[in-house]
Amino acid sequence: MAEYKNMSKAELEALKAELEAKYKEQSALGLNLDMSRGKPGADQLDLCEGLLTAVSTSDEAVLNGTDLRNYGGLDGIAPMKAMFAELLGVSASEVLVGGNSSLNMMYDTIARAMLFGILGEKPWSQQGEIKFLCPSPGYDRHFAVCEAFGIKMIPVEMNHDGPDMDTVEKLVSTDASVKGIWCVPKYSNPQGITYADEVVTRFANLKPAAKDFRIFWDNAYCVHDLTDTPDQLKEILSACKEAGNPNMVFEFASTSKISFPGGGVAVMVASEENLDAVKKIITFQTIGPDKINQYRHVKYFKDADGVHAHMKKQAALLKPKFDIVCDTLEKELSGLGIASWVRPNGGYFVSLDVLPGCAKKVHALLKDANVVMTKAGATYPYGVDPKDSNLRIAPTLPTVPELAAAMNMLCLCVRLAAVSKLLEA
Amino acid sequence: MAEYKNMSKAELEALKAELEAKYKEQSALGLNLDMSRGKPGADQLDLCEGLLTAVSTSDEAVLNGTDLRNYGGLDGIAPMKAMFAELLGVSASEVLVGGNSSLNMMYDTIARAMLFGILGEKPWSQQGEIKFLCPSPGYDRHFAVCEAFGIKMIPVEMNHDGPDMDTVEKLVSTDASVKGIWCVPKYSNPQGITYADEVVTRFANLKPAAKDFRIFWDNAYCVHDLTDTPDQLKEILSACKEAGNPNMVFEFASTSKISFPGGGVAVMVASEENLDAVKKIITFQTIGPDKINQYRHVKYFKDADGVHAHMKKQAALLKPKFDIVCDTLEKELSGLGIASWVRPNGGYFVSLDVLPGCAKKVHALLKDANVVMTKAGATYPYGVDPKDSNLRIAPTLPTVPELAAAMNMLCLCVRLAAVSKLLEA
Repeated sequence: MAEYKNMSKAELEALKAELEAKYKEQSALGLNLDMSRGKPGADQLDLCEGLLTAVSTSDEAVLNGTDLRNYGGLDGIAPMKAMFAELLGVSASEVLVGGNSSLNMMYDTIARAMLFGILGEKPWSQQGEIKFLCPSPGYDRHFAVCEAFGIKMIPVEMNHDGPDMDTVEKLVSTDASVKGIWCVPKYSNPQGITYADEVVTRFANLKPAAKDFRIFWDNAYCVHDLTDTPDQLKEILSACKEAGNPNMVFEFASTSKISFPGGGVAVMVASEENLDAVKKIITFQTIGPDKINQYRHVKYFKDADGVHAHMKKQAALLKPKFDIVCDTLEKELSGLGIASWVRPNGGYFVSLDVLPGCAKKVHALLKDANVVMTKAGATYPYGVDPKDSNLRIAPTLPTVPELAAAMNMLCLCVRLAAVSKLLEA
Repeated sequence: MAEYKNMSKAELEALKAELEAKYKEQSALGLNLDMSRGKPGADQLDLCEGLLTAVSTSDEAVLNGTDLRNYGGLDGIAPMKAMFAELLGVSASEVLVGGNSSLNMMYDTIARAMLFGILGEKPWSQQGEIKFLCPSPGYDRHFAVCEAFGIKMIPVEMNHDGPDMDTVEKLVSTDASVKGIWCVPKYSNPQGITYADEVVTRFANLKPAAKDFRIFWDNAYCVHDLTDTPDQLKEILSACKEAGNPNMVFEFASTSKISFPGGGVAVMVASEENLDAVKKIITFQTIGPDKINQYRHVKYFKDADGVHAHMKKQAALLKPKFDIVCDTLEKELSGLGIASWVRPNGGYFVSLDVLPGCAKKVHALLKDANVVMTKAGATYPYGVDPKDSNLRIAPTLPTVPELAAAMNMLCLCVRLAAVSKLLEA
């Protein structure tokens, strides 16, 4: 197929008519599809049905003499810390176990910084305007937390190997009001990019103007590989230690997309000095998270190998879904010069860049045809994609046939929006 | 027995020698007892072993077509709201379900008020010094939350039927920096007092100087009756509505001392207007609490009647413990004029007032004999009991024989401290 930009006006108009006819035809099929939500499918959740009964009796709820049903255990049970330590390549003393939501731990971390400050620095809420760097496209809920707290967001470009580190280094080292940066370092949301070793090293070697600057390292997809040659992410805590910045990173992870999103276990990972300060505050907040549910996970998965084996089963279910998404994009859009994407090795999303000024239009066309996508712009701070070009595809929840139908419709809309755009120009 | 205050110096000295000898003798027995912790005993927890398997299969984790294993459900599942609504006498739309800790919900409620303000008022953190009224003796963790946030605590006397409402009314209506009051309205911690209807009505009719004043109504022991003639607490939300103060109260409760402290379900109860504002903020904090665990509770207890039936079984285990505590106090201390207490109809504690200036001494004597009590002073703001007279007894965790031994030792120490005190005077 020819690139659209090389087509004549007459050719474009003929193509437009053809695509509009197809759109009308396919819309009439009464589709009802949703590619908007980064939710596991029921088949994935069924894989760990045994988790539900992993702690079935009173006797099984006892761990080394500690009754897990009772109060206590502010920072989690030892084997849960050990499992995440192994998964993330850190020490168990650097792991703090929380409730069922890593987002909650991130929000609370920022709330604590706002109210109490970090390691003796002034509370953020008393420091005037503060800012976070936001590699974009990124995760809308990260940006929403900043917006809730009135933290000014500064978008940073994503390169193929991570955030644009020249910009990050410059802003972090010169502006003391820059207090944080949001990162999804492995299989980033939405692009599926894993930060290169050099990028991680540059992160660890940042020289922040603010003593209370922290990297928010949301390792949400740490074990969420789709292939036998998964991406490898350099471990950042030890890199920070080596660089003389042991306290500069707060890492987060959870089993939300390993076991059950509605009943998993989340962790925060940081230097012991950071965690000691956190624990001094959360001791006022809670007597401790749900230890029984932690122990269910420990008994069910046993160790990091158990988790990896489980994730291979998930990959077997997910790979065909990602394949149909990427194969359809390739078949329908490659060579047209109107869209770009990367086939990810893991994670939960495929990011699609359409012609500038077309993302909202594509979203609207799909909506009219009853195909739901994440709102255009959602992957950018304040919901504003300056180029109006990024769309996020979430392949996990629909079935393969549903995905096939939805992707055909998506590609059709991308083409239709592109043709219309080019005709306007 | 004669009241100690009527004894001559010689009689007191003889008694002191006798008590010291007994103390020495009993200390030598090598006791190792703990009456400090408001934790359920393992026998109580065993009562709901079936909760662990209440949701055992993937199919059972579906409620009206909603997969409870997956994301969603910010404010809890409908039947969990319904169960607490029935237990607390409110509407399900006034219930917000949280994680496993009501303390966490209370802390978060104050954190939100500090950062975002309440219903359009300025954030508390921007209002200069703010204050909470603290009926005392009270719950140390309530006071600790205030201390963490730098909220000034003003102790208020407890009467036999609740806080001294003359003082509460005066301070709340005249001082706009008074933003809250901590209440444990049923079987109060530590005194076991249930607020009289008139007290609840006076609470509901408060005329706060501050629009963002809230009653923190920690109904921790709402169903924790020990007798067949339990105390009745007037429902405060409807009382507040009637009084034209529908938004004035935040109520909290949990299953921590119904099912498992380390794996229960907590709720916040408030007007729909209050809850709508809360939900607008927590939507940034979490995608939702653990729905599977909520459903375990719903399936296991079925409804409010199921909870009440379960609590009767708990009472059967707890009544003998409270009896041994109160019987020993009566046998060993009544008529001596050196201690007072009330036999509670429920809750988790017995409060003991010893001669002014003696509580720390009693605590120290017990500690030396390896009997652990809650620290003297802990039941007051900043850990300072102005009369140094209150001690909190937690009968639930030890066995009956352990309690008998510990209570004998406690009474001995109360007598010894009293005699010493009277001899000093």
